[in-house]
Amino acid sequence: MPFRHKNLTLRTTAKNQILDITEEVRTCVREAGAESGVCTVYTPHATAAITINENADPNVGTDFLRALAMAVPEHEDWLHDRVDDNAAAHIKSALVGPSETIPIQDGKLALGTWQNVFFCEFDGPRSTRRVIVSVSS
Amino acid sequence: MPFRHKNLTLRTTAKNQILDITEEVRTCVREAGAESGVCTVYTPHATAAITINENADPNVGTDFLRALAMAVPEHEDWLHDRVDDNAAAHIKSALVGPSETIPIQDGKLALGTWQNVFFCEFDGPRSTRRVIVSVSS
Amino acid sequence: MPFRHKNLTLRTTAKNQILDITEEVRTCVREAGAESGVCTVYTPHATAAITINENADPNVGTDFLRALAMAVPEHEDWLHDRVDDNAAAHIKSALVGPSETIPIQDGKLALGTWQNVFFCEFDGPRSTRRVIVSVSS
Repeated sequence: MPFRHKNLTLRTTAKNQILDITEEVRTCVREAGAESGVCTVYTPHATAAITINENADPNVGTDFLRALAMAVPEHEDWLHDRVDDNAAAHIKSALVGPSETIPIQDGKLALGTWQNVFFCEFDGPRSTRRVIVSVSS
Repeated sequence: MPFRHKNLTLRTTAKNQILDITEEVRTCVREAGAESGVCTVYTPHATAAITINENADPNVGTDFLRALAMAVPEHEDWLHDRVDDNAAAHIKSALVGPSETIPIQDGKLALGTWQNVFFCEFDGPRSTRRVIVSVSS
Repeated sequence: MPFRHKNLTLRTTAKNQILDITEEVRTCVREAGAESGVCTVYTPHATAAITINENADPNVGTDFLRALAMAVPEHEDWLHDRVDDNAAAHIKSALVGPSETIPIQDGKLALGTWQNVFFCEFDGPRSTRRVIVSVSS
């Protein structure tokens, strides 16, 4: 079977938060038994995103969230704030994007030494956030 | 055949515009008869982009365009404006990116409840904009 | 074999730099002999990124780098600068993202007339930067 999908469930605890999901994604690739392929990590939420960066220093994620807050200020007369007070979260989600695709080589995710997979929460805390890991081999 | 591509044609009517192409993408997935796979939505233009976000309130798209205009102002002494007066459109296109990849599970695009696929026009109006929907299963 | 990966090696010569790798990516697609599929271009570095845009006027890349520098200023009291003086590079990398996925139709990369594939360096110069081109067909 060329495709295997696995659904992950996450809990977030802050309005803006970075969760490192690298180990969960590696487990999916291992369980799929894929020697060669690609892995797409996707979140089906319009106020969250997936990105890849360093987590050896967790402040990288903190800096990223602050940079996004500078570029997309809260309550900047956004029209959607009149309906549902989370326009900045939607804008950040659209900007960072809901997915990343990573090669699988020799049975392993081809992440670089300093790369980790991040789930980005922009409108938490939420008891249930979902991520779909799709392995194609 | 593991890959099926379908070309969509769009018309835009404003300089900056969001077009919701979710139904067109869903139709491609249905026509491909894919039970399990991924779908890549790609636009071959350097002044447009693809993103995913909420359209239940169409103001989310409007807010997104305004946030991009704040981050990437028009005529900020961009060098490319001397050649072709659309540098901001190119920068927005490179930032948002030309593609998104979405899982297909149980024959359906795994978009979340609040997710729609957006074509982003940054240098319209244009009579013909193209999108390629590639279904891999 | 449905997947073929090829590793490219690049050298960068400036702190922030755009390298056009379109021809290298086209060669990988040709060598893979893929008639129909998708190509994922991925960089395994946390201070670099992949994007797609015009290179007919190389100033488009220069403008893009300046827009990123405006949105993500150097030394803005970033926490990671205390550990390793390159926080802005990490933030730009997370924002632009490490990969792009491009359709392959009729044996060719479906890039638009004005689209080129860019490797973005945000923390150079570096003697060895890597890019993985994964062709799925």
